[in-house]
Amino acid sequence: MLYVIGLGLGDEKDITLRGLEAVKKCDKLYIEAYTSLLSFGLSSDGLSTLEKLYGKPVTLADREMVEEKADDILMEACGSDVAFLVVGDPFGATTHSDLVVRAKKLGVDVKVVHNASVMNAVGVCGLQLYRYGETVSIPFFTETWRPDSFYEKIQKNRTLGLHTLCLLDIHVKEPTLESLCRGKKQYEPPKYMTINTAIEQLLENEQRRGEFAYSEDTTCVGFARLGSEDQTIVAGSMRQLQMVDFGTPLHCLVIVGKTHPVEEEMLEFYRLGENSNQTT
Amino acid sequence: MLYVIGLGLGDEKDITLRGLEAVKKCDKLYIEAYTSLLSFGLSSDGLSTLEKLYGKPVTLADREMVEEKADDILMEACGSDVAFLVVGDPFGATTHSDLVVRAKKLGVDVKVVHNASVMNAVGVCGLQLYRYGETVSIPFFTETWRPDSFYEKIQKNRTLGLHTLCLLDIHVKEPTLESLCRGKKQYEPPKYMTINTAIEQLLENEQRRGEFAYSEDTTCVGFARLGSEDQTIVAGSMRQLQMVDFGTPLHCLVIVGKTHPVEEEMLEFYRLGENSNQTT
Repeated sequence: MLYVIGLGLGDEKDITLRGLEAVKKCDKLYIEAYTSLLSFGLSSDGLSTLEKLYGKPVTLADREMVEEKADDILMEACGSDVAFLVVGDPFGATTHSDLVVRAKKLGVDVKVVHNASVMNAVGVCGLQLYRYGETVSIPFFTETWRPDSFYEKIQKNRTLGLHTLCLLDIHVKEPTLESLCRGKKQYEPPKYMTINTAIEQLLENEQRRGEFAYSEDTTCVGFARLGSEDQTIVAGSMRQLQMVDFGTPLHCLVIVGKTHPVEEEMLEFYRLGENSNQTT
Repeated sequence: MLYVIGLGLGDEKDITLRGLEAVKKCDKLYIEAYTSLLSFGLSSDGLSTLEKLYGKPVTLADREMVEEKADDILMEACGSDVAFLVVGDPFGATTHSDLVVRAKKLGVDVKVVHNASVMNAVGVCGLQLYRYGETVSIPFFTETWRPDSFYEKIQKNRTLGLHTLCLLDIHVKEPTLESLCRGKKQYEPPKYMTINTAIEQLLENEQRRGEFAYSEDTTCVGFARLGSEDQTIVAGSMRQLQMVDFGTPLHCLVIVGKTHPVEEEMLEFYRLGENSNQTT
């Protein structure tokens, strides 16, 4: 049996009882390292916080490993119980459909344990989840690569009065260009897009396109460390949020569409000004 | 302190460790009864399953009670720790912004504990969450009331190639018309819309509007008891799904937009036919 278990957003305490029960009976535990494991006590001394809670070792599985060794993992799951742990929900912002498809094709039973993901936890700012349009991803611009497919999506959402969740780029374990040329992989340090960079890129795109999809005055909500004890949520114009130091990653951003009065009332608590830098 | 704690979708085991820790230290526990508590052991013998796990009594709070006695609940939360338990996520399909806004206005500290909600758990069928447009609600039609504001929303989503999550109507503790006239409230038995009724109403609307937003042949995914051990997920055309008995509530429905190959591959596992009636 392959268990795909969402760990939620904050730290080791955000696993569900159902998830922990499954972990306890698994013979082997993998944790995906595609996204960010910052708050899960996984930095320098490995996986100690989780391993302490689970009472067994956890193997860090980066994208390379999952791609190259998926069949090994799945063969293990044929004869025993294996857990694949995922930050957030298994089918949230980063999806794990690939692994599940491969498992099902091999006839391995799959059980999913859901949890909160950024896709629903952004609801905490008071903007109704059913009033969101398509979600967009903002990639890091480079000197030569400045894609803007998100621009039209935001534009369409805003035309319909809908909110837009912007997921901000993460570079984890990216091989350096130099090392790729040399054939021996070395990795860039991890890089997480801040809300400030995202807004800078968004405004650059608006300036280039000039179709008034949004502007410096458009109300947004910035989220840092959503779902953690020290999360920060601030509402304000793009111009205002660009000045805010949101602190450590992960960040995400919502571009606000047309609001209902009850949404406005909740947003007020997060607005810059007298209630600035509200955390919940 | 007011804790607003998501219980997740399945049963008592879907609470997070963080949520359970908060529950344990609270002096008073309320559970919202707006939506459905079917799978939380709350039917005939009250709240026994949850109360056993929590080691303390849980007060059932219906919409009336929360509206009329919110200030009492919040006054309790001024001097002690009170938990308001919510099926799914506190800001998922049914939002609890009102209570949070009132709490904040009274200066009561609020802590939110997130969990899975239908809004992200539908990801399990393989359709990417970031490819969903606006969510719609399908209300029960009556003889004289057959609203169709959802029609245009579905149409817009489909024009953009996006998937549409349809939340299906729930009538819990609705006073009978007769009892309202007599001034002493009596309640209708609870009523949950099935996928079959939803599709029937959707097709009736398409027939009336005739704008080809969707048809009998449009691919959909039906979900029953999403997140529970016995969840059922079936993909097929509207015509096909109309014939499927999905069993007990809750149901919801996704109208599929334009799909990517990896989405198609996952959907295959849930398609009617040889793999019919797959549960995960």
